[in-house]
Amino acid sequence: MIIILKSEVTDEQVQHVVERVEALGLKAHLSRGTYRTIIGVIGDEQKISAEPLRAIPGVHDVIPVLPPYKLASREAHPQPSVIDVAGVKIGGGSLAMIAGPCAVEEPERMNAIGAAVKSAGANILRGGAFKPRTSPYAYQGMGEPGLKLLRETGDKFGLPVVTEVMDPRYVEMVERYADMIQIGARNMQNFSLLTEVGRTKKPVLLKRGMSATIEDLLMSAEYILSQGNSQVVLCERGVKGFDKVTRNLFDVAAVAVVKGLSHLPIIVDPSHATGRPDLIPACALAGVAAGADGVHIEVHDCPERAKSDGPQALLPRQYSEVMGQIRKLAALFGKTISPSK
Amino acid sequence: MIIILKSEVTDEQVQHVVERVEALGLKAHLSRGTYRTIIGVIGDEQKISAEPLRAIPGVHDVIPVLPPYKLASREAHPQPSVIDVAGVKIGGGSLAMIAGPCAVEEPERMNAIGAAVKSAGANILRGGAFKPRTSPYAYQGMGEPGLKLLRETGDKFGLPVVTEVMDPRYVEMVERYADMIQIGARNMQNFSLLTEVGRTKKPVLLKRGMSATIEDLLMSAEYILSQGNSQVVLCERGVKGFDKVTRNLFDVAAVAVVKGLSHLPIIVDPSHATGRPDLIPACALAGVAAGADGVHIEVHDCPERAKSDGPQALLPRQYSEVMGQIRKLAALFGKTISPSK
Amino acid sequence: MIIILKSEVTDEQVQHVVERVEALGLKAHLSRGTYRTIIGVIGDEQKISAEPLRAIPGVHDVIPVLPPYKLASREAHPQPSVIDVAGVKIGGGSLAMIAGPCAVEEPERMNAIGAAVKSAGANILRGGAFKPRTSPYAYQGMGEPGLKLLRETGDKFGLPVVTEVMDPRYVEMVERYADMIQIGARNMQNFSLLTEVGRTKKPVLLKRGMSATIEDLLMSAEYILSQGNSQVVLCERGVKGFDKVTRNLFDVAAVAVVKGLSHLPIIVDPSHATGRPDLIPACALAGVAAGADGVHIEVHDCPERAKSDGPQALLPRQYSEVMGQIRKLAALFGKTISPSK
Amino acid sequence: MIIILKSEVTDEQVQHVVERVEALGLKAHLSRGTYRTIIGVIGDEQKISAEPLRAIPGVHDVIPVLPPYKLASREAHPQPSVIDVAGVKIGGGSLAMIAGPCAVEEPERMNAIGAAVKSAGANILRGGAFKPRTSPYAYQGMGEPGLKLLRETGDKFGLPVVTEVMDPRYVEMVERYADMIQIGARNMQNFSLLTEVGRTKKPVLLKRGMSATIEDLLMSAEYILSQGNSQVVLCERGVKGFDKVTRNLFDVAAVAVVKGLSHLPIIVDPSHATGRPDLIPACALAGVAAGADGVHIEVHDCPERAKSDGPQALLPRQYSEVMGQIRKLAALFGKTISPSK
Repeated sequence: MIIILKSEVTDEQVQHVVERVEALGLKAHLSRGTYRTIIGVIGDEQKISAEPLRAIPGVHDVIPVLPPYKLASREAHPQPSVIDVAGVKIGGGSLAMIAGPCAVEEPERMNAIGAAVKSAGANILRGGAFKPRTSPYAYQGMGEPGLKLLRETGDKFGLPVVTEVMDPRYVEMVERYADMIQIGARNMQNFSLLTEVGRTKKPVLLKRGMSATIEDLLMSAEYILSQGNSQVVLCERGVKGFDKVTRNLFDVAAVAVVKGLSHLPIIVDPSHATGRPDLIPACALAGVAAGADGVHIEVHDCPERAKSDGPQALLPRQYSEVMGQIRKLAALFGKTISPSK
Repeated sequence: MIIILKSEVTDEQVQHVVERVEALGLKAHLSRGTYRTIIGVIGDEQKISAEPLRAIPGVHDVIPVLPPYKLASREAHPQPSVIDVAGVKIGGGSLAMIAGPCAVEEPERMNAIGAAVKSAGANILRGGAFKPRTSPYAYQGMGEPGLKLLRETGDKFGLPVVTEVMDPRYVEMVERYADMIQIGARNMQNFSLLTEVGRTKKPVLLKRGMSATIEDLLMSAEYILSQGNSQVVLCERGVKGFDKVTRNLFDVAAVAVVKGLSHLPIIVDPSHATGRPDLIPACALAGVAAGADGVHIEVHDCPERAKSDGPQALLPRQYSEVMGQIRKLAALFGKTISPSK
Repeated sequence: MIIILKSEVTDEQVQHVVERVEALGLKAHLSRGTYRTIIGVIGDEQKISAEPLRAIPGVHDVIPVLPPYKLASREAHPQPSVIDVAGVKIGGGSLAMIAGPCAVEEPERMNAIGAAVKSAGANILRGGAFKPRTSPYAYQGMGEPGLKLLRETGDKFGLPVVTEVMDPRYVEMVERYADMIQIGARNMQNFSLLTEVGRTKKPVLLKRGMSATIEDLLMSAEYILSQGNSQVVLCERGVKGFDKVTRNLFDVAAVAVVKGLSHLPIIVDPSHATGRPDLIPACALAGVAAGADGVHIEVHDCPERAKSDGPQALLPRQYSEVMGQIRKLAALFGKTISPSK
Repeated sequence: MIIILKSEVTDEQVQHVVERVEALGLKAHLSRGTYRTIIGVIGDEQKISAEPLRAIPGVHDVIPVLPPYKLASREAHPQPSVIDVAGVKIGGGSLAMIAGPCAVEEPERMNAIGAAVKSAGANILRGGAFKPRTSPYAYQGMGEPGLKLLRETGDKFGLPVVTEVMDPRYVEMVERYADMIQIGARNMQNFSLLTEVGRTKKPVLLKRGMSATIEDLLMSAEYILSQGNSQVVLCERGVKGFDKVTRNLFDVAAVAVVKGLSHLPIIVDPSHATGRPDLIPACALAGVAAGADGVHIEVHDCPERAKSDGPQALLPRQYSEVMGQIRKLAALFGKTISPSK
């Protein structure tokens, strides 16, 4: 950690900062420049990172030299983590192909969609039983019957299932039905919820918040990891942008940034990132080319009747086409789409 | 609602859209232009707003003409709402001056800060017992003992108290201690939590999310209102920006935008908006000049020892100064700082 | 065009709007809904688009149904344009691989870099003789001698050259030396400059501004096209974002969005988009996978001695590696890297 | 300047960095921490700021401790600058009230608007003869006849005039007619233009670019100052935001940020910041309350006939009202609206 002092700092103030640092069991190394004095803090920066050093009189800025996350960092775990979702591997060269409707729908529809995505090559089935909707008047999901239906559909087609939990009171219920628990973008910093899923034994799909930096995302992963659950898969799904031509701004570079900082797998979700079926194939391929460990796509066989987010769903036929291209791209990069049962 | 069809739409597709609209009990009014056909939907738009009309083949875009919120809208309630927080009025010319430490601290400190903000003219005391922290290793708050301490401090100085709740499981507990319940920016779209506070009888301070549009903010208010709790105060606290010179980007125009769309009071929080004590006075005054119904400022008597967000707190002396200026400005605009007991 | 009237609009105001529309030679088609009256404007929307209709009393909003650009639109030119830069083709399956130093450097360096990028497979050489620098104290480029040197290097290695012009007074000079003229991101809305390059006979590389929507970008292309120069290649080079982990936010979806709206080729520039050599390969591949018509990468054989933007340059060896991967990807998608002489 | 080395840096690399620093005439002060080694650079940071130190192998990051601007900084000029525009003072307690139409219009209209803003209390008249328009098909301004007309209108009402220049070739012409030269937001980083106006003897109104940080803005001011023209007034006019409810996002905190960093006056432009007449009064007052040295508002007596930006203009009556409030606010803060002749 580096503490930069103000140009007009007094000797007393410098002394006070040094004492604060030393009182925390660290060493302070003073460097007087022509215009500014800086203090290099020597020792375990983590001990001091929560201290309000910037509030000490005379301090101009405090610059950490280590990332604030530990368990999520590459240093802690140099090899890429491989997460196992009921037999499907994510990371380390194995790709997750997650597909399904936005919300769990009635049984015939689930059957049709399940069959379609399985035959196209998806290896994990998705579907929401609890839906975070901007409007209180919009469809909120089927609840537990939806979880049950998703489970049955997954079992029928030999696909593990992932579904979102929005409320810490339902984590236990969702854990009972799902193979992987999703934390949605709006809940990426719902710390109670992160802590609760950190206590489960199921893999977690953690989606990046719309205004979250990559450091924020890794810190949210750290919440889960620090509770003892090391099975976290990150997901880039677009951040807030100024151009309304797409729903969000797909930050494909985030894939490569995360690969440099963390051992955790990261997948991409072009459905939410763009909100436009016509852009999903290009962005899915871009994500895989950038090194993503999987692709999450919403698929519906009749989007105009979908209970949620129909306008952004791919038709089964379109999904099958993009899967064909993803397969070729994966092969080119020596990656495998991990088989489900 | 206006449905814009694609230029290459077929007659059959047009017919299909018209039928969908009519099946929902509304009328479709066709207008064929030179380049595009549009359909004006006549009747209660709300009935149809959740339908995935954009997913119907041949549809280019769907443009609502009414806002998606009802209870929060000016149309529903033309007069400004005045919220009563244990005797302190917010809205309709009465200003809330909310002040206190970021986190509830030990008793002596609470005493000192409580005394200071009361004497400076604050009318509501704030302090967090549950802290949403980016890092799992940062101070997470005192929990229930903190709520108790905040309550005692408020009672001692005759100040109603506001405190944040982060978890639906704690809403009941927070309601027992607090006069006003705060929903933080990171939880603005935590819909389970919004629903739960909507069932309480306490006023709610709803902070704008970092990437929330004003419509998103009003929709989150609508969640609370639709549960029967009509006492919602909004808070502008800065949105995500690209210039790291401030912590967030203070959107002062949001105050005037909200005034045009809604009857709900809106206050400003320059502490979180800027993260810099030197900018708080200017932004507090800007907020009041723009028509805000109150100002929320973090105050600490020893920022360098604060358990949370010390670097952005004002000293009691600084707070007293800015309160002096706010009082003059309020008087100029014919506003009153509502007295606490 | 659709004109949405205010809910409280008077009959007189409606009449006035209708008259304004008809006075412009168009027809107004009135549609009275339950809550709002709308007017569908029938006829050539372009005639009326510049009129301040939103300023007419009683008007709530004006929604165009056609894009504001004509020459740049797919409708005007359904087939993708193929631009010829001294024999190198861009668009329609032919990829441009533009590489070189940020600024033109001394002859030995230009020789070394030119040889390296040629042997790696680049087909156009870049280098700036006029540098737009945030600081007046930073290196501003060699000027005309730089143009000459770039020309000579290109000729030596059989590579067409592209270089930036920043000032309308230098367009003629740059046109004399360059095979393709670059408009930088900061000048994307320098309309005098756009007009001037629109009058040249050289292909133009138009980079997207940091806060430009895709519509803004296409409107800037329209400035050039409307002067008679139809040889425009667009370039996505990152937009302003909130996460400082990268220099800009690489908007890879823009490639697919542009493909849907326009016939103009679009390439990607991962060097400026990310500012980080370690992220360039992933973003270059993502761009090609998303359908880009080329890749622009800064290469320098000694980045720590570069006169501009050294820290974001790839070494020749790194460039050669990424070119190897791009070649495979191009082959997979049936694209060709257009050969230079 | 602080150089942070990578954790895996070798001794040779450290040595190489130290040598580079010393070769530039500065001293390097090494500080080996537990996890990272840092180098404090002692001496004139400016000498080294343009060097690509981040590109040296082993370097993780380079952190400047001084701002990159000199002439624009508070250190260089501790007292606030007061700019004189043909007798009207801006800064140091004197406020500029700039008003007029977006584009210069025909003589009768200019007369009517000139009379109206003068009588409302404006002290500088604005109007564009060269208009930067997103579309090549939109009205581009009257050119020199517009300058002449603006000059005559200003003279008639005893108001100095400000007008925009977009092209370095027209700087001399604009200087002949105008009392103050405006650089628009889209040209804030048009460095050729900045250099050219820096060579004139007229005050410059420099508008902040839509994605410019405050440091970027001050660097653009530095371009002008470094050419010998010290009369620069900055203008906050909204930055790019994600909420389309306003045209831009009015960054009122920028006023206070600039006051801390620079001696240059800064005014606000709520017309362009919001694009909505109903929000202009609130934002104008917010700007003055935050400490702005003036307010720029577009006024038109018949917005629905305006040649440019009619929908965002205030009517003379509305302008007069907001001026009444600004006057009271100015008096409260001990500021004066500098009288024109």
